[in-house]
Order: sequence, then structure tokens, then C-alpha cells
Amino acid sequence: MRIYLDNSATTKVDLRVLKKMLPYFSEKYGNPSSIHFLGEESNNAIKQARNEIAKILNCLSEEIIFTSGATESNNLALRGAMKIIQDKNRHLIVSNIEHSCVLNTVKYLEKQGFQASYLPVNQNGIIGIENLKKIITEQTVLISIMYVNNEIGTIQPIEKIGKLIKKINQTRKNKILFHVDAVQALGYLSCDVKKLGVDFLSLSGHKFYGPKGIGILYRKKGIFLKPLMFGGEQEQKLRPGTHNVPGIIGLAEAMKIAEKDREKNVKKIFVLREQLKYGIFKKISKVEINGSIKERVAHNLNLSFKGVEGEALTLRLSLNGIAISTGSACSQKTLEPSHVLMALGKGEENAHSSVRFSLGKFNTKREIKYVLKILPKIVKDLRKISGF
Amino acid sequence: MRIYLDNSATTKVDLRVLKKMLPYFSEKYGNPSSIHFLGEESNNAIKQARNEIAKILNCLSEEIIFTSGATESNNLALRGAMKIIQDKNRHLIVSNIEHSCVLNTVKYLEKQGFQASYLPVNQNGIIGIENLKKIITEQTVLISIMYVNNEIGTIQPIEKIGKLIKKINQTRKNKILFHVDAVQALGYLSCDVKKLGVDFLSLSGHKFYGPKGIGILYRKKGIFLKPLMFGGEQEQKLRPGTHNVPGIIGLAEAMKIAEKDREKNVKKIFVLREQLKYGIFKKISKVEINGSIKERVAHNLNLSFKGVEGEALTLRLSLNGIAISTGSACSQKTLEPSHVLMALGKGEENAHSSVRFSLGKFNTKREIKYVLKILPKIVKDLRKISGF
Repeated sequence: MRIYLDNSATTKVDLRVLKKMLPYFSEKYGNPSSIHFLGEESNNAIKQARNEIAKILNCLSEEIIFTSGATESNNLALRGAMKIIQDKNRHLIVSNIEHSCVLNTVKYLEKQGFQASYLPVNQNGIIGIENLKKIITEQTVLISIMYVNNEIGTIQPIEKIGKLIKKINQTRKNKILFHVDAVQALGYLSCDVKKLGVDFLSLSGHKFYGPKGIGILYRKKGIFLKPLMFGGEQEQKLRPGTHNVPGIIGLAEAMKIAEKDREKNVKKIFVLREQLKYGIFKKISKVEINGSIKERVAHNLNLSFKGVEGEALTLRLSLNGIAISTGSACSQKTLEPSHVLMALGKGEENAHSSVRFSLGKFNTKREIKYVLKILPKIVKDLRKISGF
Repeated sequence: MRIYLDNSATTKVDLRVLKKMLPYFSEKYGNPSSIHFLGEESNNAIKQARNEIAKILNCLSEEIIFTSGATESNNLALRGAMKIIQDKNRHLIVSNIEHSCVLNTVKYLEKQGFQASYLPVNQNGIIGIENLKKIITEQTVLISIMYVNNEIGTIQPIEKIGKLIKKINQTRKNKILFHVDAVQALGYLSCDVKKLGVDFLSLSGHKFYGPKGIGILYRKKGIFLKPLMFGGEQEQKLRPGTHNVPGIIGLAEAMKIAEKDREKNVKKIFVLREQLKYGIFKKISKVEINGSIKERVAHNLNLSFKGVEGEALTLRLSLNGIAISTGSACSQKTLEPSHVLMALGKGEENAHSSVRFSLGKFNTKREIKYVLKILPKIVKDLRKISGF
């Protein structure tokens, strides 16, 4: 049996998505920049994909920039916006549990001379609006807060932050821009950019049953941005390079399905997650949930098993055909404790003994039952080894 | 009938390549950064792909950096290398017929304060080694010359340039780095990086029957580079973001096939190109070849039809099911004359009346025969309209 509970790392491409992509590899393979029939065909397909995506995000199609993924989208939003600003006294704010691609970009911007503040989260993994208010200065020009955290699944009050920024901007000359990394939200929460009140929003195809290597940056019309790369005229010169046509088609289809089935999937996945959670708490002692269980996306369960190394647990489960993760996929090959778990203030031991279960729409009750059969034995075993 | 003669813009994904990619969408979909069985599976697949690519390029697997395509590879090489160099007096040299992603990157570097020289080509579209020698100064730290031009298909003497740079470097403290955009060469010419004597080499999957959205930068071991983006630990931190696994697998397979069938394909395509060339010259008057016909890649034929607008000809052929191109796919939606054709010194009229036929391994004699039947009528017609 192979059970995949690592959907926050990446997801299986939905077969309907793959089917939609297939013709664009070897039949409709034209370069969308070509003016002949095959180019037009690709170009029209991209236009349609862009329109479909814009409809879901409640924005204009020209506000969609296709990128190679969310790392690029986040880099483009943050650096592209700050490049416009020449004054190095300017200040930006990010939460201290952002993805490494946001945090490392901010570190780079600090080296460039910009000022940055790292907004802390409480022990539930949620930022405080009042805390945010306090650290906004006259120099603040950009705020970047992730919608759903990739490790602990906590949901930030994006709409409230959007409203706060809007209110502040009414009386300011230097407007504050608002970027949201929504990579882990799509398919679980509405990503209506108007409702959220964001200027930039990043998404990645492979997190919602679409292909890897394709992403989106929503950029509000009228907001200036400088590109990360130089080349041809594609994507309003903000993202040059031949369009990844099958990727774009796949991303749009995946987004359509994710949005259409959102409520249904959330309900189903929530039930499975609760089944897993209650089962674990019933069968295993000394387990702690990391991050708010209430303000949390339906598919995430981040737990610390006292006296157990998260990595050892992950590897043992893997040997039993169960795929989960320690921290995020991007950082688990380093030995540092997760910055997200450390931000909750529970200490290194808790961080090292944590694992992430991230469920998905393809999981079944039977799979969860199997995990609940295997997991207690492994935890018991590992605790024996560690002398807990 | 649909005849595709625009293989320099992009190519059809070889069905063997697509077959190899397919399992990585919905079966072997793990994130290679995950430590569980599905992650390991993807990670091993990437390792194998990297090894196969390294073998073809005659380099170490750790010298391969996966990118989203050649625009990114070229940006990464040029800007990544120059970012290491703090001294703004430093100087770089590029040919004046480079792809827009190289030229626009160099323009950006000039704005940053670096010095740049644009090495001219002769009327055959070839750079002169003696001219290059003359413009190398003590401050020169980077030379970027494309292997095969995307519009006129001319082949630059890369091996000779590599040798020249090696010789100069022997007596210098500031070594000159050598970057080659080999996007249009792979599948037609050897891309052995040791033989060519390059420090960086860029490739794009979709130019040799592989997928769009994936590319390579070869970076010689020991050469420092700074990344374009910040994020996770992937690709030695030089290119963060979740790996595009199907893309990487497809690129490696496409490269293997391209290299294995190189001689066979070159022979076949050369015969077809010559058939097309002789047929056109036999049937149509006042046609001129742009760029050396001798020092040219087998699949390219760039012609100016006097008294004919290249765009009109392209569109008319398209209506007849024949896909060709004016200039490069990346620039043909602008109205400016091709900088490559202008560099040959033949004037704007010649540039505006030029079109590019770029053949591929799937073309047949029958297709060429059909083009030779249709083309003369259209040229005659367009010349009538223009009053030529």
C-alpha cells in the first residue's frame, strides 16, 4: 500500500488536468509568439487559460503573470516592487513564518539597504493585527503575509490585513503594497483578490493537482513592477521566455477543478483529517498539535510526538509506504529546526519531534485507518530507542 | 496539409520523450526534496537525468543547473557572473546578433555601470576572431557568443574563441569567462563543453523536441555565480523552487535522442533544406540568402524575397497550412526590423522582406515539394500587390 499524505509538498496531477495538457506537447506545440496558425492556436489557448484564471481570482486577465512557480512569483513580487522604489529608507514587513523563498528574498533586500521587520506569530501560529499596526511606519511600502502556512497550515487574517492597509493608504502618499503567498490556500480558501484586498498574490500549479514548473503572480493593474529577467516581449516584458504552454493549460484546468470542487474537497478532507487526528490522540500519548487547530486549513495536521525524531518517524513511515514530511519539503534536507515551529516558541525539542501530515482529495478512510494501525507501533518503537 | 517549418521557434515534443515524461505527472509525482519513497524516486530520476546530460555535454553532473528555459539560463549566467564582480570598470563582450535575452541583459548590466562592447559580425553573419582580439581589454571579464544564430543559423567559431580566451587567460590575473548560448546548436553540433572551452553554456528543452519550460545552464566547476532568485536549497541554491520533474526527465530524454540521432538528422535535414533552397532559387527570382550558407546549421534557411513583406508572406503561407517565421518568434510581434539582419548591413528593406524556414527531423520530401508548389504563387501575388 502506498499512502500519500504529503500534499503540501506537491500533489499528484489530476488525470483530467493531464488529459487537457497532453495535446499541447506533440500536436498543438506552436510557440505562442509565432504568428502562424500553430502559434495562434497556442496563443489562443493561453488567452483562454488566462481568462479562466482571472475569473477565479476575480481579476483582469492582464493582471495574471505566468512564472515558473511560486518561488519565482514571490521573488518577482517582492524584488520587482522594491526595485521600483529607489529610496533605501523604505521599509517592508513580512511574517516570521513565511516560506524560505520570501524570507531569503527579504534578507537579500536588507543587504541591498532596505529596512525589514519580521512580524511574529503567537503560539497558535497566527499574526496579530494590532502587532502589525504597531510596526507599520511612514516608511513602510510593502507587507507580505502568507495566506496559509506550508508547515502548520494556519490561516492568516488576510482580508482583515487588506482592509487595514486600505484604510491606512487612504491618508498616505506612499501607498503600502500588499503581497500574499497563497500557494497553500488555493483549493481550500477563496483567493478572490478583490475580497482579500491584495496587490500581489502568488500561486503554484503543483500544489493543487496541477503540473510542476508553472506558477502565477497576480499583479494589480496600475502597480509598477520590474522584471527579474530580461528577454523577449512575453508577459508584458515582466516575464520573458517562451511560454510553457502545456504548463499554463494544466495550471488553468487544475485551478478550475480546484475551485469547482472546493467545498466538496474541503468537507471530505476535513473529515479524514479529523479521523486521523482523533485516532492519533486516542492511540498515542504525549502528542501535541502545532499551530491553531481552528484557524487551520482542512488538510494539514502538524504534530509533535514527544521523544520521537520527526525525521526518524518520517523514514519509518516511508518504509511502510506512507509518505509524510518533516517541516517543509524545501528545508528538510538541512538539519536546522523549522523556523516556523521555532516561531511558535515551543523550543527546539518540539520542532525536532514534529511531522506534517498533509492530506489530499485522493485520500480515503481506508488509508487513514491503515496509518492509524501502523503509526502507534512505530512511535512506540522509536520511543523505546530514544529511551523516552 | 499542415507543414511545420518553424523548428527554431519551437519543436514538437518527440513521442518517445513524452512517453518518458508521462509517469512523472500522476504516478511518480513526489517532490524530489521530500525524504520519503516518492521523493526519493523523483530525486533518483533527476540524478539519472543529470548524469545523462552531463555525459552528453562531457561535464560533471554537478555542473548542470536546471532552469525554466534558456532566457533564464542566459540571465543567470551573465548577471550571476557579473554580480560576483564588484568592480564596475569591468568589461564584457557580446556579439551584436545575440538573442534579445542576452542583449537586454547586457543593456541592464550597462545600466548597472558595467562596460560592454558589441562585437559586429561580417555580412555573412560571422564574428571575426581578429576583431574580438582587438576589443578585449585588461578589464574584460566575460565574453558571450551564441553558437548558432536563431534567425540566420550562422555558426560562430566557438572552439577557436575558447582557445583564444584560454591562451589570454594564461597570462592574466583577471580570468575572462566564456558563455555560449547553444540553444540552436544542440542536435546539430557537438556541445562538448571541454572541446568548446566554455565556462557557461545555455540550452532549452523545447528547441530539440523536448518540453517547454525547462532549460539548462552548464556552469564549470569552480566558477562562482550568484543566483537570480532566492528560496530553498535546490540546485546548490543557484536555482531554488520545486524541481520540474517531468520537464527535467523530458529534457534529458530529448537530449539523448538528439545526440544519438544527430548525424542522421543533420544529413536528412540538410538534404531537405537544399531541396528547398534549390527549388526556391529555380522557381523564384530576386531571392537572397541572409548569412553564410556554408557556416550555417543544417536546418536554417533565411531568405529575403525582394518586394515582399516577410510578414505578409508568413501569413499567406500560414493560410496554406505552412508554418514559417519572420525574424525570431520572440520579436516578430514588434514592428522593428530584426537586429540580426540589420547587423549584416543589408538595410531595412532587406530585413523587412526576410523570412526564416527552419526545418526539423519530422519534415519530409513531400512537404518540401508542396511548399515549392505553393510558395512561388504567393510570392508572385504579393509582388503584384506591392507593385514590384
